[in-house]
Amino acid sequence: MMQVLAGKKIVIVGMGLIGGSVARALARLDLGAEIVGVGRDSAVLEQAINDGSITGFTTDLQTACADADLILIAVPVLAITSILQELAPVLGEHTVVTDVASVKQAVVDAALTVFGEVPANFVPGHPIAGSEQSGYAAAKADLFAGRKVILTPLVNTNPQAVNLVTALWQATGAEVLQMEVAHHDEVLAATSHLPHLLAFALVDTLSQQGESEEIFRYAAGGFRDFTRIASSDPVMWRDIFVTNSAAIVGILDEFTAALHQLRESLLARDAEQLFTLCKRAKQSRDVFLAMNSEAVKSKTSKAN
Amino acid sequence: MMQVLAGKKIVIVGMGLIGGSVARALARLDLGAEIVGVGRDSAVLEQAINDGSITGFTTDLQTACADADLILIAVPVLAITSILQELAPVLGEHTVVTDVASVKQAVVDAALTVFGEVPANFVPGHPIAGSEQSGYAAAKADLFAGRKVILTPLVNTNPQAVNLVTALWQATGAEVLQMEVAHHDEVLAATSHLPHLLAFALVDTLSQQGESEEIFRYAAGGFRDFTRIASSDPVMWRDIFVTNSAAIVGILDEFTAALHQLRESLLARDAEQLFTLCKRAKQSRDVFLAMNSEAVKSKTSKAN
Repeated sequence: MMQVLAGKKIVIVGMGLIGGSVARALARLDLGAEIVGVGRDSAVLEQAINDGSITGFTTDLQTACADADLILIAVPVLAITSILQELAPVLGEHTVVTDVASVKQAVVDAALTVFGEVPANFVPGHPIAGSEQSGYAAAKADLFAGRKVILTPLVNTNPQAVNLVTALWQATGAEVLQMEVAHHDEVLAATSHLPHLLAFALVDTLSQQGESEEIFRYAAGGFRDFTRIASSDPVMWRDIFVTNSAAIVGILDEFTAALHQLRESLLARDAEQLFTLCKRAKQSRDVFLAMNSEAVKSKTSKAN
Repeated sequence: MMQVLAGKKIVIVGMGLIGGSVARALARLDLGAEIVGVGRDSAVLEQAINDGSITGFTTDLQTACADADLILIAVPVLAITSILQELAPVLGEHTVVTDVASVKQAVVDAALTVFGEVPANFVPGHPIAGSEQSGYAAAKADLFAGRKVILTPLVNTNPQAVNLVTALWQATGAEVLQMEVAHHDEVLAATSHLPHLLAFALVDTLSQQGESEEIFRYAAGGFRDFTRIASSDPVMWRDIFVTNSAAIVGILDEFTAALHQLRESLLARDAEQLFTLCKRAKQSRDVFLAMNSEAVKSKTSKAN
């Protein structure tokens, strides 16, 4: 399917971790496509062209996008509206636009605000991949290899636009799936947004303890993982928390209820209840591992 | 200091992840010590002797320990009392006893229950190292390399006993520190026990959602780390939660209060508050990383 990208002008708006990794992934292939990076920091763009990740760059969004075939917007959720506003006057009829934000309703709302309706060539998307590091310096060509990308096309979305965006992500090595907007935002609230919220809250709570330096000094296993998660880009996460707040509060309330029950078990030193919890969680993890190993197997057999 | 181990009979009670890793670490050295493994599963003990991790084994605790110089008890917290009860009638006057449990007050209480007072040659200890895997099969010779081991001697503890236990852990590559019992249990409640409790609770909450299979299917970054933590040994964690419940509830209540505030910020879509949280947590992580890199530097310069 990669041949649909040949001869195309692909513009990547935002050369951070995600945009930069897409550029690096495409650069490894012989696509015959023009890959233009757009960003505010020209030093980063120069670095990207020196690396061979892009074929051209500009800090002027409108110039870059006026004759683009495909525009990938890779900026934090709350910055998308202003990008779309700037794009609107120059956007070609056939130009396909997609994004990478972790909250799809917010992106659909941004398009509604700017265009009055979501354009048929606009395909909301979200790669389930990332890192606690951010910025172009952390970008990696294999960031999406074997990972899932969820597209959330609407009823009026042009199937050819979906195909082009699908081809782009498949070229990076990702598996592309489709889901409804609201469902995506609920699943992500549970699997990604709440875990990050808990990590931020835990690190913050502990760092405000009187003995916080000592706490960090003796941090091991569990807490080390939490601090890693909590070092993710604060602007990106602020935007996710603000725009997906309803779904996050929903799953947070279920989690808090479970914590409250656990607190009762702790106070009662209820060994049986506590064992049941630990064992059930371990079993769920085993199911998760089995699923992943199945996925790996099925991918391997497809490749054969 | 390793020479104090020469010619000694060291008995490891419990050849799981921790006991097995100590055995493997010591086996790499030319200590001239006898290393006897004790456990209930003779297949595991035979595996360990075939691996060369131990020099002998038995399933009979009293036989192994009657003439031991040093006994390392590496079993879950709640199993320690019965081990000490079995040991009591055969324990030599000069035999040093230590343990590896993550809750030190519980171990001190177990010794009080069995001996009436904590013996002068009993040195409570805790290696800040582990894995979500458990059992001898997961044991690694370098599990303690560069990690901290906290000893919590009491006022009546024999300094020579502390020296012997310190030498044992230093031989495994660990850095040995001392702390008061209650302080250890508070620091560990914050840095290890609460993070694990949250991981168990989150995985359990999500696995009980109607769409749990889908949640696991789309799990990425944050959640993947949580499931990893939550797959730790359920018996070990039940024992930790039961025996350190007061300290864990204390820090849990602070965390829950922070979560409640966060919930208000989410409902209000308060971008500024949410950004402050994310940024502060990231800064704490940076402090943590800087500390660790200092620790690595200071270790490197010591080695030179």
